[in-house]
Amino acid sequence: MGNYKPKKRLEASEYIAGILKGDRVLLSRAITIVESNLATDKILAKDIIQAILPSSGNSIRIGITGVPGVGKSTFIEAFGKHLIGLGHKVAILSIDPSSQRSKGSILGDKTRMEELTTRQEAYIRPSASGDTLGGVANKTGESMLLCEAAGYDVILIETVGVGQSETAVHGMTDFFLLLMLSGAGDELQGIKKGIMEMADMLVINKADGDNIRKSQIAKRQYENALHIFPQSESGWTPVVSTASALKNIGIAEVWEQVMEYKKLVDANGYFKTNRKEQQIQWMYNNIHEELKQLFYGSAHIKEHLKTLEKEVIEARISPVKAAEKIIQEFKSTI
Amino acid sequence: MGNYKPKKRLEASEYIAGILKGDRVLLSRAITIVESNLATDKILAKDIIQAILPSSGNSIRIGITGVPGVGKSTFIEAFGKHLIGLGHKVAILSIDPSSQRSKGSILGDKTRMEELTTRQEAYIRPSASGDTLGGVANKTGESMLLCEAAGYDVILIETVGVGQSETAVHGMTDFFLLLMLSGAGDELQGIKKGIMEMADMLVINKADGDNIRKSQIAKRQYENALHIFPQSESGWTPVVSTASALKNIGIAEVWEQVMEYKKLVDANGYFKTNRKEQQIQWMYNNIHEELKQLFYGSAHIKEHLKTLEKEVIEARISPVKAAEKIIQEFKSTI
Repeated sequence: MGNYKPKKRLEASEYIAGILKGDRVLLSRAITIVESNLATDKILAKDIIQAILPSSGNSIRIGITGVPGVGKSTFIEAFGKHLIGLGHKVAILSIDPSSQRSKGSILGDKTRMEELTTRQEAYIRPSASGDTLGGVANKTGESMLLCEAAGYDVILIETVGVGQSETAVHGMTDFFLLLMLSGAGDELQGIKKGIMEMADMLVINKADGDNIRKSQIAKRQYENALHIFPQSESGWTPVVSTASALKNIGIAEVWEQVMEYKKLVDANGYFKTNRKEQQIQWMYNNIHEELKQLFYGSAHIKEHLKTLEKEVIEARISPVKAAEKIIQEFKSTI
Repeated sequence: MGNYKPKKRLEASEYIAGILKGDRVLLSRAITIVESNLATDKILAKDIIQAILPSSGNSIRIGITGVPGVGKSTFIEAFGKHLIGLGHKVAILSIDPSSQRSKGSILGDKTRMEELTTRQEAYIRPSASGDTLGGVANKTGESMLLCEAAGYDVILIETVGVGQSETAVHGMTDFFLLLMLSGAGDELQGIKKGIMEMADMLVINKADGDNIRKSQIAKRQYENALHIFPQSESGWTPVVSTASALKNIGIAEVWEQVMEYKKLVDANGYFKTNRKEQQIQWMYNNIHEELKQLFYGSAHIKEHLKTLEKEVIEARISPVKAAEKIIQEFKSTI
């Protein structure tokens, strides 16, 4: 705060016109406003979002996750270039609430996508920072809308595959891609429970050289495993493939599968239904988040919760009664 | 309500003394009070719970789930009898917020456990009714504490495996058992996503007669699948077995696995840590539930939400702005 002064802002209408024309500079500056926590920027962001809303949504949104070391950046570089070659405009965003952008495991390190960063048909934006996952997810979600309004028709949203961000990304994308390595399951230790069940496609990356045989075995194992999963609401059966992003092998196949998926969910209506539900859910997530902030925002409540936690653990008060007590207190203070 | 008058109530101290002595009649009447929605009963219930709290917890809590038709009641009958034979006292509860007790798929139909119901060492209680899962889960959770205080050292909590109740049961038990049928995955259609990842053990039931071979194949498939799951925090690797509850085959093995699990989690400290976390989580679940009720309890809010949902779907307002709007409204009305 203190001496910090934001860049001079334009009028909302200037950002809006710029975005709708596909102006990358104005798009970037608008995203900066969306990410900003300044009160004046928040108002400006709302006006921009509100105006571009009808022009958003015309894209396929793909979530991409995998533990650090799986080769996400190399994959996105290869995948992005392939998409551009097919005439698409690709925006690449990321969600990583824990990141201080220091680890380089996520988009912050643009140099990992050397060629893609130089292409006009690709727009790469590192993760917004923020305290809460909800806050960061909002920012990424709204940035996605801006990118769509600017004409990007494929949105890739990256996460690191080790936290809760995956659920957030799954909640804002149409197709969920999980990158894996071969090695008979051990590498899954880094993947949180539940993430595999969200995947529409598993890509075993680094399937080259000595790794090819191992990757084939891993592919079969994952196929067998996915086979016994409950069927997804989309009607889609998740697929497993091998790829080498480094050698550009198996990249086209990933996009073909996305297209197969799109054909299916367009036909059975799931694409639209899911999008609607996601929008509604986005609203409710925000409502519940704000309710919690209203509650936990009180220093007095926080202090009392600490005491109650202790009492609950020591079986001096039942969890139900403890909750009732503090809710009574909350009611009396608001 | 109108003419409805509850049974005459005793003093809290009488229920408490009765429960601590293992009196089944007073235990039953106390659970009825815990399940009651009458204001006077709620106060009475709190006093009882508060008093027995230090005597609760001395049990192993096992969640049992599976789709209707998997043979849950037959399994529980066989499993319960086996436990009694080993000298245990077994309490059997259930969670089923959707049930009107009419479908007979859950404990309501006590006749399905013919022998067990007649045994003094078994206590069977059908599902509490209620509007919200949170409410029903509270009632079942508190009934569990009462059963423990009455000396039941094995608690079985049953669900139907098709809804969200499983997460609630998983959140209040030490060990989670998933009953399955053979048949190469198709029967899983009824099991909700995420349930398999919660399981500490999969038992393929009805593994008798012509089914034996199919069950063995299913067992191997599930083993392969579980193998690639991320490891559980408990350090336990889920096991798969086959059983025929009807012919009393494989029942002893289930208990042996529970004991193996208990040995592991006692040794690595997970048993205690998990119990503590569950208690704390129980409190927070109640807090969040009550916050939501505070919010959704307003007819005006409900009405406005309907309008906002429509506007969000039609992209006339962004989900983030919609949430902000209604939270402002909520703040101004409280």
